[in-house]
Amino acid sequence: MRMVDIIEHKRDGLELSEEEIRFFIKGYTDGSIPDYQASALTMAILFRGMNKNETSILTDAMEHSGDTVDLSSIKGIVVDKHSTGGVGDKTSLAVGPLVAACGAKVAKMSGRGLGHTGGTLDKMESVPGMKIQISSDDFIKQVNEIGIAIIGQTKAVDPADKKLYALRDVTGTVESIPLIASSIMSKKLASGSDAILLDVKFGSGAFMKTFDSAVALATTMVEIGDQLGRDTRAIITDMDEPLGKAVGNSLEVIEAIETLQGRGPKDFVELVIQAGGIMLEQAKIAKTREEGEKMIQKAIDDRSGFKKLKELFKAQGGDISYLEDTSKFPVSKHIHEIVSDKDGYVERIDSLEIGVSAMKLGAGRATMDDVIDPSAGIVLNKKVGDYVKKGELLAKAYTNKLNIEEVLNEIKGAFTLSTKHVIKQPMIHKYISI
Amino acid sequence: MRMVDIIEHKRDGLELSEEEIRFFIKGYTDGSIPDYQASALTMAILFRGMNKNETSILTDAMEHSGDTVDLSSIKGIVVDKHSTGGVGDKTSLAVGPLVAACGAKVAKMSGRGLGHTGGTLDKMESVPGMKIQISSDDFIKQVNEIGIAIIGQTKAVDPADKKLYALRDVTGTVESIPLIASSIMSKKLASGSDAILLDVKFGSGAFMKTFDSAVALATTMVEIGDQLGRDTRAIITDMDEPLGKAVGNSLEVIEAIETLQGRGPKDFVELVIQAGGIMLEQAKIAKTREEGEKMIQKAIDDRSGFKKLKELFKAQGGDISYLEDTSKFPVSKHIHEIVSDKDGYVERIDSLEIGVSAMKLGAGRATMDDVIDPSAGIVLNKKVGDYVKKGELLAKAYTNKLNIEEVLNEIKGAFTLSTKHVIKQPMIHKYISI
Repeated sequence: MRMVDIIEHKRDGLELSEEEIRFFIKGYTDGSIPDYQASALTMAILFRGMNKNETSILTDAMEHSGDTVDLSSIKGIVVDKHSTGGVGDKTSLAVGPLVAACGAKVAKMSGRGLGHTGGTLDKMESVPGMKIQISSDDFIKQVNEIGIAIIGQTKAVDPADKKLYALRDVTGTVESIPLIASSIMSKKLASGSDAILLDVKFGSGAFMKTFDSAVALATTMVEIGDQLGRDTRAIITDMDEPLGKAVGNSLEVIEAIETLQGRGPKDFVELVIQAGGIMLEQAKIAKTREEGEKMIQKAIDDRSGFKKLKELFKAQGGDISYLEDTSKFPVSKHIHEIVSDKDGYVERIDSLEIGVSAMKLGAGRATMDDVIDPSAGIVLNKKVGDYVKKGELLAKAYTNKLNIEEVLNEIKGAFTLSTKHVIKQPMIHKYISI
Repeated sequence: MRMVDIIEHKRDGLELSEEEIRFFIKGYTDGSIPDYQASALTMAILFRGMNKNETSILTDAMEHSGDTVDLSSIKGIVVDKHSTGGVGDKTSLAVGPLVAACGAKVAKMSGRGLGHTGGTLDKMESVPGMKIQISSDDFIKQVNEIGIAIIGQTKAVDPADKKLYALRDVTGTVESIPLIASSIMSKKLASGSDAILLDVKFGSGAFMKTFDSAVALATTMVEIGDQLGRDTRAIITDMDEPLGKAVGNSLEVIEAIETLQGRGPKDFVELVIQAGGIMLEQAKIAKTREEGEKMIQKAIDDRSGFKKLKELFKAQGGDISYLEDTSKFPVSKHIHEIVSDKDGYVERIDSLEIGVSAMKLGAGRATMDDVIDPSAGIVLNKKVGDYVKKGELLAKAYTNKLNIEEVLNEIKGAFTLSTKHVIKQPMIHKYISI
């Protein structure tokens, strides 16, 4: 079998055989197929697409390109949630402990932030002592003992995806539904969970810019999960404003804590309850989503979710006195107030602009080598639908940097005001399951 | 400027700017742009195409990626002919001396054979002593003195094409008209001739399989030449049978000599006269193609073309006693006769099959490292339109190899016979000029 023939088959619009797809992933992972052939193939895939069968085989081949995590020794159904990345997305830190408090098992491998999107691991590390690299045995032991662990994915998991994603990033082949879907799903499947809830975001600041493309991606991923024998479902959520009010690492941890204490922002609480409801149905703890939602609400009200969050941080070495008293988190040296220069209803808060601004304030990385400032970020005072008066506070910017006037202007520019009343959309625009 | 942006622009169907195209060729040639980005771009070009302007800029950038040959010190108009490669194509060895004998200047850089197609340099080297690597100064001096030189292209000419062609060959991006056209034309333009006649072949054994694709390629190349200020014209010729009767290195040299002595095969003589007529019009030696054709016929009849061939070989160190007495060429140890097993009119002689068979007999290279046997090859006894009786000779196979029964069967299989009278098509199917 020759790689050039595989490239030509896809270029000519043919369906690749299972043998061809596995030959490619094996050869690319072990280095016998060079980057220049892989990039030619991915560009051909971008133009020609892949059908359901090809995409599932590709995902399976990538999943098995390295170590896979065996969670079979964990009692009960292990559920996972994955977001395609947004701004202010601290959902895992709230919904994870909540579903674990309700009895589901959460064995989650998470990632770091890059660009305008944050990463769960970076947020967790804003609590002193928190460890995110844990051995496989300790990971499983922790999930069996307290029902939840959130750790970093090891390098040995899905090496094909790491290599292929880095290549696609510099060769203009990121924007391909089968390639995005197989990249996300191969990692999720290799992480070993029985059931997966995907939160596919769309809009400014999200990976998918339109509702239709988000639905297409979500549908493909749900189909892959189904073909490969995992209960996979998806929700399509709006990123036309940041999620909740806090954007930035310790700021988001604080918001997650407040949410688990019943004081969360309305949109974020709505997402947490609905996502948690679905996950409890997947874990067969609730009979329906609605029943699951009620259980999540109860776990907020009785603080069992917050208790679970503390157990999680404590098990992984975190100083939980920070969770009990959030005033212990270091505060940025400079806090700038951004006020409105006119009256109106907030129609839109550009997530991309807010995410990039937070990064510039120190909350994120432009490249993987950058160091994060855990205290930096933005806290919104107004959300879509709110009425704001001239001179009223729109947001606060937290930073240890100087000369950030331009960033403050960008934050203000992210707000679009309307003279008309704005009706806020529901968080979940669509629910996809098989 | 970033290469990934250039890839994405082409992927999205945009026209690349002059700056982008030159950035790519410069960076790819100097190694700052890696193969994997170049292959992604060429695949995007394959799908999206390039317009006339982009293709001309690409050609110009490639032409100037290395040394260009300055022929301005040659008196008169320098003409060149380029064939896209066929089987039995010894045209340069006949038409070159003929147009030079008529007063045109021929400063030709040629190539070696690969796969089923032969190369002019390999054919020339079947004459002992023949040198094809000559310094630039000696090359120009020879053209000024005797009107013709045919040499190998140096490595310093068009390095972008060498690198890009090798990459396209293994990444499924050969079959793109703008990439093929820029590859051919950049080399031709770098070689410095004032006027270029392109012989674009189609059919089995040719690079372009259909008449329409050959016309598309030829039109693109003629447009490039026009945009870059060279008189460029094209003829579209049929490769549904090998050109002439001889396929193989010394066998083809002998046929070229016979043609210059007025004893050439009908189809080959027709092509030589018509191509030569156009070249003489391009060189402004003839007022019209028809007048040029008469001059070429005269140069055959009065043997001035043959005299020029001998001057060419002598100037480059060749032993011209071989040209004067072709029986001096070594003959293969084994000569196999292939006879027909039925009666009929020859409808088609598959050029690809004949070319590959000749290669297997020793006349060509499967890879660039293979050594050629100059005496090996095939001489056809019947051509399309001829009537053949059962038991009559179809072709002779020349080889120094043993165990070639399968090849002999393939040669016989290349002949398609018909019970009906077959009308032979004219050599030139279309003439393209601006």
